[in-house]
Amino acid sequence: MSHRFLRACRREAVDHVPIWLMRQAGRYMPEYRAIREKHSLLDMIRDPAMAAEVTLQPVRAFGVDAAIIFSDILPILEGFGLKLTFVSGRGPVIEQPATAAMIATWPETADPAATAFTLDAIRVVRRELDGKTPLIGFCGAPFTLACYAVEGQSSKEYEKARRLMATEPKAWHALMQRLATAAAAYLLAQIQAGAQAVQLFDSWAGLLGPDDYREFVLPYSRYVFDRLAVSYPEVPAIHFATGATGLLAELKEAGGTVIGIDNRVDILEAWNRLGPGVAVQGNLDPMTLVAGGAIMERRARAILDKVGHRPGFIFNLGHGVLKQTDPTHVAELVRLVQNYRAAASPKGSP
Amino acid sequence: MSHRFLRACRREAVDHVPIWLMRQAGRYMPEYRAIREKHSLLDMIRDPAMAAEVTLQPVRAFGVDAAIIFSDILPILEGFGLKLTFVSGRGPVIEQPATAAMIATWPETADPAATAFTLDAIRVVRRELDGKTPLIGFCGAPFTLACYAVEGQSSKEYEKARRLMATEPKAWHALMQRLATAAAAYLLAQIQAGAQAVQLFDSWAGLLGPDDYREFVLPYSRYVFDRLAVSYPEVPAIHFATGATGLLAELKEAGGTVIGIDNRVDILEAWNRLGPGVAVQGNLDPMTLVAGGAIMERRARAILDKVGHRPGFIFNLGHGVLKQTDPTHVAELVRLVQNYRAAASPKGSP
Repeated sequence: MSHRFLRACRREAVDHVPIWLMRQAGRYMPEYRAIREKHSLLDMIRDPAMAAEVTLQPVRAFGVDAAIIFSDILPILEGFGLKLTFVSGRGPVIEQPATAAMIATWPETADPAATAFTLDAIRVVRRELDGKTPLIGFCGAPFTLACYAVEGQSSKEYEKARRLMATEPKAWHALMQRLATAAAAYLLAQIQAGAQAVQLFDSWAGLLGPDDYREFVLPYSRYVFDRLAVSYPEVPAIHFATGATGLLAELKEAGGTVIGIDNRVDILEAWNRLGPGVAVQGNLDPMTLVAGGAIMERRARAILDKVGHRPGFIFNLGHGVLKQTDPTHVAELVRLVQNYRAAASPKGSP
Repeated sequence: MSHRFLRACRREAVDHVPIWLMRQAGRYMPEYRAIREKHSLLDMIRDPAMAAEVTLQPVRAFGVDAAIIFSDILPILEGFGLKLTFVSGRGPVIEQPATAAMIATWPETADPAATAFTLDAIRVVRRELDGKTPLIGFCGAPFTLACYAVEGQSSKEYEKARRLMATEPKAWHALMQRLATAAAAYLLAQIQAGAQAVQLFDSWAGLLGPDDYREFVLPYSRYVFDRLAVSYPEVPAIHFATGATGLLAELKEAGGTVIGIDNRVDILEAWNRLGPGVAVQGNLDPMTLVAGGAIMERRARAILDKVGHRPGFIFNLGHGVLKQTDPTHVAELVRLVQNYRAAASPKGSP
């Protein structure tokens, strides 16, 4: 019998609601910081043994119901010749960001050598987990990768990238086609290496309205999910975007067997708007996990009372764990969710 | 007969859809830059003659259907003793941001002297406009003011402010009560000085989920709108938030006769979810205005085809004009909207 996380992704019955947390391996954990103090983020990602160790830390510490491979969404861009560095206090920086002229010279897909270390890390983690906890692979969605490739750094509005989209549609479509091809190949390789589910992170899709999303983004995310569905129809594919409450219908149309919901919308309302046919993951506010105590318990129980009885619900945050989070709050949350049993007449029952 | 902007706010018949643009007075205009080069932003806001001049520039240049007083949402915080500076490249900075201990010593409302110059500017603008174009006043919503007061600067997530909310609810409620009292008094004073409509900007409300918004924010925004409705029921009150597609029902419940919609949702879908009883303002993507040309025309016409025939529609951007915008695009957009006539069988007709 497969694990409750994978069963929930397929909307099958589970013994309790499964829980994992985006960015569950990270700086809020002392075991993580002990490694991070001696190594750069890129070094940790590029070393399969270190990446595997960090991936396993939250599984050991909290007994979460899924591991997610420790990596980053940006190294794949190095497979197109972009040079990635992490600058302290500024985050990831691409020295010479992509321009329309550069994109015209790019290969059709990324060099797989740019991300081979993550496939090795996946193999190590699968051996270590020994079938007890499923492992999730992931990739940035074409739009989010395009934002970074063109902007060259984190940004609030990604104006350069969105300007390219609006003013140079031919270059934009060429860029998105290449990123979609690379993302699909990378996720397929992660599954071949042992990932039992995959998540596509479209962190910045929420910047767009539905018309722009449909015209400039949806076909490329759909390409990725279609490739996965053809080759590995049994492997759950999670589609997650932030700030995208206005795009729920479009995200579902683009694909994914599970839709990730951020914390800016009521999860029951979001699920009802998505309609049948998908599982749902989310959506506790990471700030509530920082606060802990009574408000965390109230908000977590509210989510469980609303959707915890529905087949296909996976508990998660609406966004990644914040670095100032107290690990004891994480332990309490995992316990609360795993011990929760839906009441006889839950609120919001369909 | 009142102006078409005010008539649309009241859902009365208009000769054409009115248009104004958030941040229509700004750095994208050469006339504005000519003044800004010689004066700081705070100097311009504090000098009623300069603030009035800048307010009038887009009315003269583009013939928009409403003026909005040139000011900033933050000076009101100086009325509680916070010290505001604008640091080049960093934006507004509060040297000693509000803490729970400081809030306990705050007066019940802001000293009106902190914003008196804006009331003077309103009087100057009303004289100059001579009844030809209506003038909008504005204020930051209590939550957005609280974000800045506690964080001390612009931020992507306003973690300090949201942490105070989640972990020190008593201090949070004391802060919000004071900010709501001050915002209501300030907007009433703007109306007394001559503002013919007012807009409450809740720029950061979209960071919250509906449960947090209801518990920690809604009562205070509602207090502001209730005060306005009691004293000036005929003055339109616009309620605008960004990234708040998941809060539409809550924003309507908090108040406002017009709801401002950002560019991250389909405007027809948003209006249908809001339901009857409110006018709607929005929602072209500011990046589309930067692009201009065919895509701007397509996107603007799509909005007009969807909702241009509904009583109570005011055309605007989904967010402020970006500084890299070409003023000729603004002129084209204003012309397009003002010349638009709804087709006989518009799409999306109810």
